[in-house]
Amino acid sequence: MRITVLAGGVGAARFLRGLKRAAPGAEITVIGNTGDDITLFGLRVCPDLDTVMYTLGGGINEDQGWGRAGETFSIRAELAAYGASPDWFTLGDRDFATHILRSQLLGAGQPLSAATEVLCRRWQPGVRLLPMSDDPVETHVVLAGPEDPGKRRVVHFQEWWVRMHAETPAADIVASGAAQARPAPGVLDAIEAADVVLFPPSNPVVSIGTILAVPGIRTAVAAKTTVGVSPIIGGAPVRGMADACLAAIGVETSAAAVGAHYGPGLIDGWLVDDQDKATGDDPALAGIEVRALPLYMRDLPATATIARAALDLALELR
Amino acid sequence: MRITVLAGGVGAARFLRGLKRAAPGAEITVIGNTGDDITLFGLRVCPDLDTVMYTLGGGINEDQGWGRAGETFSIRAELAAYGASPDWFTLGDRDFATHILRSQLLGAGQPLSAATEVLCRRWQPGVRLLPMSDDPVETHVVLAGPEDPGKRRVVHFQEWWVRMHAETPAADIVASGAAQARPAPGVLDAIEAADVVLFPPSNPVVSIGTILAVPGIRTAVAAKTTVGVSPIIGGAPVRGMADACLAAIGVETSAAAVGAHYGPGLIDGWLVDDQDKATGDDPALAGIEVRALPLYMRDLPATATIARAALDLALELR
Repeated sequence: MRITVLAGGVGAARFLRGLKRAAPGAEITVIGNTGDDITLFGLRVCPDLDTVMYTLGGGINEDQGWGRAGETFSIRAELAAYGASPDWFTLGDRDFATHILRSQLLGAGQPLSAATEVLCRRWQPGVRLLPMSDDPVETHVVLAGPEDPGKRRVVHFQEWWVRMHAETPAADIVASGAAQARPAPGVLDAIEAADVVLFPPSNPVVSIGTILAVPGIRTAVAAKTTVGVSPIIGGAPVRGMADACLAAIGVETSAAAVGAHYGPGLIDGWLVDDQDKATGDDPALAGIEVRALPLYMRDLPATATIARAALDLALELR
Repeated sequence: MRITVLAGGVGAARFLRGLKRAAPGAEITVIGNTGDDITLFGLRVCPDLDTVMYTLGGGINEDQGWGRAGETFSIRAELAAYGASPDWFTLGDRDFATHILRSQLLGAGQPLSAATEVLCRRWQPGVRLLPMSDDPVETHVVLAGPEDPGKRRVVHFQEWWVRMHAETPAADIVASGAAQARPAPGVLDAIEAADVVLFPPSNPVVSIGTILAVPGIRTAVAAKTTVGVSPIIGGAPVRGMADACLAAIGVETSAAAVGAHYGPGLIDGWLVDDQDKATGDDPALAGIEVRALPLYMRDLPATATIARAALDLALELR
């Protein structure tokens, strides 16, 4: 069976671990969000790709969900001693090695997809990990503030998310460069060849939304049997600050609103938590098959159960 | 008093520490060799500049004479796990931070001299440290081997020095790019404005020799009162494998031969060790004032004595 998954960071990585357990024989292709990517100290950092790679490859810091296990922070301390900025994005020494090697490969003219393949040769994530695009796409956040939209401050997503903790409301979130980006080699093929497409409980705006903003991907997904897993449980994001992102695009923070935001033209099935069972009766979700089950990814068995349910629903809907 | 010093790595750095002690009020400009520079993993590494900067700034690993004190080696281990090469050049995590920041500055279009100034703002070496040139110069070694010079293998100096331990004889040593290089801003001015110019006991071929190969520097030095300190004591280099370098350019490994190699057109005074006292009688050194004294830089006081002797001789010869 061929499964293609659109993935953000921590939530997607954990879901994928469950999916591998739930469907051990499946050929899984992961299309990773690169809108969160940022160049720090001249090095290209791809947080979502790395979180998936480290998690599935056994190198993740399990407690925080991102970064490497057993990290040290010599380089960070040294850069601070040099007065180099920014100081708000924490990178460990082990993690730095990944960014150094990736930047070397990119600097030598290799596309991000090829660099990702080189990195995955070590980590053997057990899935094919593709960046959504080899072209630069950066998620930018327009901060709420002055009435005049021309005077509003625009920051890189990471600055808003990490440095500002998404506390300043966003007036808009823009996948800068997405309209000109082409899907990376293999991306459209992987969607077209998939038996099912899954959306893990990733951020609907800055993870799944950004991937769908790359021309061609939304149409390809819409043509497939696609099932999503709600990242919102009981009106709150399970992890992260998806509510702040949803507010920016005028979508309510509820499992029903997110399902309706994707819409029946894109997804065929929608998994919600038991406490959001009423979602199934929402007329906004007409045309989408909604199933309720416990959605907290407490541990690997619980996560495998969720992944299995998503897969079963998709196979049923084909 | 203005002193300008042409500097390689460890020997020069230790000599400079002695010089600062011997002439606390002096304005010292150091012109550092960049021929040993190498790009590793996409990062620009400047071993000689960094050795001077770390040594004078109190960050050096005193035992080995290069690299940072209290190093860890996470990045090196990670890069090895990725199968990245080369694996023969050891860089510690703290040291990596210097190369990351320098590479970021260079990547943003700053010249090496400006990047060096930024790095020195942290280390406060107490001297003005200038790279000999902002243009790329790389010392390449032509390995002895096939009769046909066109078939001989050429390697980067660091590969010969570090990986091969200079065990394969060198047929020639070439400062590649030197002929096209321009002295970095301030270099010629610092030589012209100097009351004295000093050559520390650095490698006469791949350190001092490379600096002198940048057009304009040799002529500027020749016009000044210049005193050198022999890096050869009793027919052997005090440190490093200068003998292998001297052999490649057909110069005997002796204090007399190195003094004569610089020659009376370039240096005015030559300090040799007590055991090389006979050097003063060598007709090849006619026109050079030779002084003998203990030249082992055992500790800071001994080194300050050597530096003081070099300075005194230079002032005497002005």
